[in-house]
Amino acid sequence: MSDSVYDKLAQLGITLDPVSAPGALFEMAVQTGKTLFVSGHIARKNGAPWVGKLGQGVGTEEGGSAARAVAIDLLGTLHATLGDLNRVTRVVKVMSLVNSAPDYTEQHIVTNGASALLLEVFGEKGRHARSAFGVAQLPMGACVEIEMVVEVA
Amino acid sequence: MSDSVYDKLAQLGITLDPVSAPGALFEMAVQTGKTLFVSGHIARKNGAPWVGKLGQGVGTEEGGSAARAVAIDLLGTLHATLGDLNRVTRVVKVMSLVNSAPDYTEQHIVTNGASALLLEVFGEKGRHARSAFGVAQLPMGACVEIEMVVEVA
Amino acid sequence: MSDSVYDKLAQLGITLDPVSAPGALFEMAVQTGKTLFVSGHIARKNGAPWVGKLGQGVGTEEGGSAARAVAIDLLGTLHATLGDLNRVTRVVKVMSLVNSAPDYTEQHIVTNGASALLLEVFGEKGRHARSAFGVAQLPMGACVEIEMVVEVA
Repeated sequence: MSDSVYDKLAQLGITLDPVSAPGALFEMAVQTGKTLFVSGHIARKNGAPWVGKLGQGVGTEEGGSAARAVAIDLLGTLHATLGDLNRVTRVVKVMSLVNSAPDYTEQHIVTNGASALLLEVFGEKGRHARSAFGVAQLPMGACVEIEMVVEVA
Repeated sequence: MSDSVYDKLAQLGITLDPVSAPGALFEMAVQTGKTLFVSGHIARKNGAPWVGKLGQGVGTEEGGSAARAVAIDLLGTLHATLGDLNRVTRVVKVMSLVNSAPDYTEQHIVTNGASALLLEVFGEKGRHARSAFGVAQLPMGACVEIEMVVEVA
Repeated sequence: MSDSVYDKLAQLGITLDPVSAPGALFEMAVQTGKTLFVSGHIARKNGAPWVGKLGQGVGTEEGGSAARAVAIDLLGTLHATLGDLNRVTRVVKVMSLVNSAPDYTEQHIVTNGASALLLEVFGEKGRHARSAFGVAQLPMGACVEIEMVVEVA
């Protein structure tokens, strides 16, 4: 079958890292029917949580880079879970949680970093519904966390 | 078939506005199987974001009006996506994000503005599961954002 | 068929309380296909909202107990909705909202209180995807709110 998703990743110079196990208490993704629910992934940089709060030390551009990094980790989880990213028939829904100061209002622009990566990699199949909003904090102080719903073949 | 949903909208004096396109990076709604995932819609007033924070300048009553306005915009997206609101067989789930001061605790009352509208328009098919909670901020400073999961025929 | 889920609850000394009705505007759970979407449940203690903010008066250990209490209430709703908890074929997804001070970063540890209970009761069928994050506030000042997606037979 088509290798297009992996070709695209290679063109973008993206390497998928092994997915870190979440410990014994939950899964990175669970499938029901043709729908795969992917756990919230926090942003990481050099293997550690990418910490900080938007509007308070972290700017929109850095936030967008963090969101893109999360999307790449989500692809790593999809690859590990499905065995083949080409089994993704549609990215259905993205929920993007942006660690936000009380007056920071560019969560949608931060989230574009993830949305754009998904479109680049999956093409039209990557076009998703989404919600983006500002949270008070995130696990381990991460600046962004993203979860996903994916349709699989 | 039945025009009951549109009849109800007419009785309520509600006009569905054209849905604003979200730009190139995501969709207002994506369907998988019989389930339609609708993107988070921020509250708008006179075409602009309905800005403000509950418990800090915006009161519960105004918040409820904003939530009702979001529900109407969600109907606009459903109409644009499905072609016919009567294709909605059930409003399954509503997630309501209320831009909240750290001590504001009436997110559920604000959200009733949306829930009541969905019941008025769809009747028993509008009866949904829901979550409502207070977020630190929302895109463009909106006071409310709501996303929805809908079952369609 | 198996009574294992109820046996397990008895072993754990857990009694499922009657589910409080949410009023006329929404449902505690709505099923579409084989998927049950369960409304966000706030933490309760002795029948009243379990109020407080993590990192500001409420500690991680208490938060974990509150999350466990929510999980038990979610089981109460599943029992009331499905008639038999053994109809749950998989806990698919958990979303955990932790009422958080702006610098509190242990939402994942709080949420483990719910995840562990689901695993204890359901065994491998209880292994779920999840997201956990810090919200600015919750309805009635609750310290934790959790919603769930469940696959049912």
